[in-house]
Amino acid sequence: VAHLRLSQLCELLKEASLAARLEGDDRVIRGVNTLSDASDGELGFLSNPKYLRSLEQTRASAVILPDQVPSPSGLSTIRCSDPYSAVTLAIVHLHGHRQHPKWGLSERATIHPSAKIGANPCLAPGVTIAADAVIGDDCVFYPGCYIGCSARIGNGCVLFPNVVVYDGCVLGNRVTIHAGSVIGEDGLGYAPRSDRWVKIPQVGRAVIGDDVEIGANCTIDRATLGQTEIGAGTKFGNVIVIGHGTKVGPDCLFVGLVGVAGSVTVGKHVTLAGQVGIAGHCSIGDNVRAGAQSGIAGDIEEGSEVFGSPAMPIENARRSLAVVPKLPELMRRLRDLEREVKDLRKQLNDRAECNLSDERRAP
Amino acid sequence: VAHLRLSQLCELLKEASLAARLEGDDRVIRGVNTLSDASDGELGFLSNPKYLRSLEQTRASAVILPDQVPSPSGLSTIRCSDPYSAVTLAIVHLHGHRQHPKWGLSERATIHPSAKIGANPCLAPGVTIAADAVIGDDCVFYPGCYIGCSARIGNGCVLFPNVVVYDGCVLGNRVTIHAGSVIGEDGLGYAPRSDRWVKIPQVGRAVIGDDVEIGANCTIDRATLGQTEIGAGTKFGNVIVIGHGTKVGPDCLFVGLVGVAGSVTVGKHVTLAGQVGIAGHCSIGDNVRAGAQSGIAGDIEEGSEVFGSPAMPIENARRSLAVVPKLPELMRRLRDLEREVKDLRKQLNDRAECNLSDERRAP
Amino acid sequence: VAHLRLSQLCELLKEASLAARLEGDDRVIRGVNTLSDASDGELGFLSNPKYLRSLEQTRASAVILPDQVPSPSGLSTIRCSDPYSAVTLAIVHLHGHRQHPKWGLSERATIHPSAKIGANPCLAPGVTIAADAVIGDDCVFYPGCYIGCSARIGNGCVLFPNVVVYDGCVLGNRVTIHAGSVIGEDGLGYAPRSDRWVKIPQVGRAVIGDDVEIGANCTIDRATLGQTEIGAGTKFGNVIVIGHGTKVGPDCLFVGLVGVAGSVTVGKHVTLAGQVGIAGHCSIGDNVRAGAQSGIAGDIEEGSEVFGSPAMPIENARRSLAVVPKLPELMRRLRDLEREVKDLRKQLNDRAECNLSDERRAP
Repeated sequence: VAHLRLSQLCELLKEASLAARLEGDDRVIRGVNTLSDASDGELGFLSNPKYLRSLEQTRASAVILPDQVPSPSGLSTIRCSDPYSAVTLAIVHLHGHRQHPKWGLSERATIHPSAKIGANPCLAPGVTIAADAVIGDDCVFYPGCYIGCSARIGNGCVLFPNVVVYDGCVLGNRVTIHAGSVIGEDGLGYAPRSDRWVKIPQVGRAVIGDDVEIGANCTIDRATLGQTEIGAGTKFGNVIVIGHGTKVGPDCLFVGLVGVAGSVTVGKHVTLAGQVGIAGHCSIGDNVRAGAQSGIAGDIEEGSEVFGSPAMPIENARRSLAVVPKLPELMRRLRDLEREVKDLRKQLNDRAECNLSDERRAP
Repeated sequence: VAHLRLSQLCELLKEASLAARLEGDDRVIRGVNTLSDASDGELGFLSNPKYLRSLEQTRASAVILPDQVPSPSGLSTIRCSDPYSAVTLAIVHLHGHRQHPKWGLSERATIHPSAKIGANPCLAPGVTIAADAVIGDDCVFYPGCYIGCSARIGNGCVLFPNVVVYDGCVLGNRVTIHAGSVIGEDGLGYAPRSDRWVKIPQVGRAVIGDDVEIGANCTIDRATLGQTEIGAGTKFGNVIVIGHGTKVGPDCLFVGLVGVAGSVTVGKHVTLAGQVGIAGHCSIGDNVRAGAQSGIAGDIEEGSEVFGSPAMPIENARRSLAVVPKLPELMRRLRDLEREVKDLRKQLNDRAECNLSDERRAP
Repeated sequence: VAHLRLSQLCELLKEASLAARLEGDDRVIRGVNTLSDASDGELGFLSNPKYLRSLEQTRASAVILPDQVPSPSGLSTIRCSDPYSAVTLAIVHLHGHRQHPKWGLSERATIHPSAKIGANPCLAPGVTIAADAVIGDDCVFYPGCYIGCSARIGNGCVLFPNVVVYDGCVLGNRVTIHAGSVIGEDGLGYAPRSDRWVKIPQVGRAVIGDDVEIGANCTIDRATLGQTEIGAGTKFGNVIVIGHGTKVGPDCLFVGLVGVAGSVTVGKHVTLAGQVGIAGHCSIGDNVRAGAQSGIAGDIEEGSEVFGSPAMPIENARRSLAVVPKLPELMRRLRDLEREVKDLRKQLNDRAECNLSDERRAP
């Protein structure tokens, strides 16, 4: 089991260009945990102020805190302006990344004789690799993975159980795909003829960039023609659905249950929160952020933050959606006003009549 | 084939504390069916008044009805105040639960020598069990299931085809998971450094309580640290997505396509309808009910019923959303009022001017 | 590699009852591509006016255009009033449909002795076929597919990797199901007893019609009693969730992430865009169209086009949702009016008082 002195951790953080300062005893730490689950010998952290109370009650031995949060008594504290990156580094050093089973090249994997397998393979029982596929070095394929004909997988890829890569699709280097995700299935491509749907052969492919990580049970269509693309460094949550011919830029982050239709262009470093939907043929600029359940049916300018369905600029959305629960009251006030105005009109008319009759009386 | 006299069924219902009364002939029943599909010798039931017409047209021999619904002529009737529970019992007695194939311990299952397998295993071809996994008694794993290193599965669990349990995760007793669901994949845990995403090793686990049933193609993240939890007796539909570190209480019911982000706390007996989304770090009280497509971005008090996106109390939501289709009319009425008020203002001013000129004329 | 003269393509189009006319040189074409990706020797097409600019910049040798779009200089043009159908036919002739691997009857497939397998099987390694299943002629099952006990699969079906068909379910002829989809899992059927959920055995089945194509990672519940049905010729995108007992008509098109609850009736040729949800027991008429993210909680008349959540007629929805971003302004204008009206009322009262005092002064 790994362990680390807090002073050693501070050194490691400095080496990673994360300024860090130890306050309190230089304790030995053997693991990282949440504030509420941590016990003696463990390191906690706080980045979300919502959990300040957990900070007071934690049984952790030490904690990583941003500058502005006071340290509770009895806890050694590592001060760091970026607690999230600091705790990431601590987890890497104390827990490390997942160790995969050592399957080598299992006899129960089925590999077509024409497929090319790189150095140091780890191909589990139940893996199937079809004709002319090319697999890079140091790949780990868990049980039930399928690599279609002529697909190409880069070096250092990890495919968890039951991942499917259709024929002709391409994965870059160090791509990680979680269980049950499917790359390169046919998109919903049909030509309507009278009331029937005539299948358009989907002859394009899907291309996944380097260092992409894809969650579980995602589906990324192949293109009808040309290619569907997921840019390098992009990270997907679970059950992301990407339509045919869509091109997602690098370093994006999509949360679970996001659906992007076909022929969409998404720029770089775009963040889509849970259950966001984007309609076909839209263009989404760099650094766009869309709030949960947003429905995007038009182009979005780079740098915008949008929310709502249909999506609008975030500030507009917040103010507008805050009115929705008051709509019945708004309706009532409108009705009151109408009554009031009608009454005023009547009074004014009565007055006018009265004046007229006065006038008539006057002479 | 099982069959049952209606009088026997009434006895069974009484034994299960469900008061039941037979009206009409004591017929022999050999199956349960929907009112519209039932034929002679079958038992139908009505619990939703929407199907009253089917009751008149059914060819069933008998029917289970609540007290207030009159019985059609020619049909034997079992009166029961809880027709849903009554028909459940009838189905159990006449049709029984699914019989699983008898695979024993298939030679085509791959079981690591260090794994511990309980009594009476039913492990299909293509099952893979990794090192140090512990499997309870009487478990049924369909083809393509994967149990990761050191995972622990309780007694009497049924995993349908291609279910994946990641390393270190835990299932209680009598857990049922439908095809393609994934337990314990990594969540979307990255620390942002400039515009890149640095992977945070997800070293926690997912823990599923006793008697949980999970639908097909669901994904339940492991925790970054500590554990994701699904409480005992909770039932999930299909394609439910649960984020890392989220804790769902016992006896909840989540309908399909629900997404719950990370670090959410859900109380007991919470019902989430289809496509509901809950944002990260929210706290949902016991017995909360959320309507379909609700978007929850804050804490919800126990016992509340909410609806809408953003979610609001159900009555408020119903009244507010009923106004939305009238918004164009509301806008028009507002414009009319503005014109009217401007006109009144003008008349009042004219009158004032007129009076002034009267006054000026007066002397 | 296939190739085709443009004049030959025109002939083929005419044979398929698609009127087509060649303008410009009769070039040889060796493939179809998008306007932006096409190179010399390739055929492009334009159906969406959004891509007019790509038409000017394309390096394609020829292009299929509708009548009203002028042809750029240097490009041979095939005029066709239905470019989508024309390009489909060109793709079929130049690229063809996918060639499946030739697995024959793999020794690594596990087939129960009581199962009946039709002529010309292509059953991959890792396929499992349970007792009493009946498989038609010319079926292709990719690795990891599971066919449950007594399930029946028609002729010419293609199941991509890890497709699961539960016990007793039925597929018609020429059904295509993409990777990871599940047919016939149990629906969310429980009888509530106090705060617990009592499992209702799901003894019905799911029946998929001829020529249905289902995307990746979909889930189609079996019925509690009777059957869930997907009509002939219907096409599903990815991650479609269909509840128990729901009956979908023929020739429908459902885009990704659509959720249809249980006991819903959907007519023929219904189009549901992405992330649409339909609540239980609704009835959706023929030829209905629902826009993305619509939430349908009631019956929809045939031929209607709806949008929004809750769904309303499309024109109403467009006008209503266009008001939502103006709600804060609407609120402000209402407040201004209230102030204005209050002020008018005051003036009128003052005037009345003034008149009264005038009157009092008058004598």
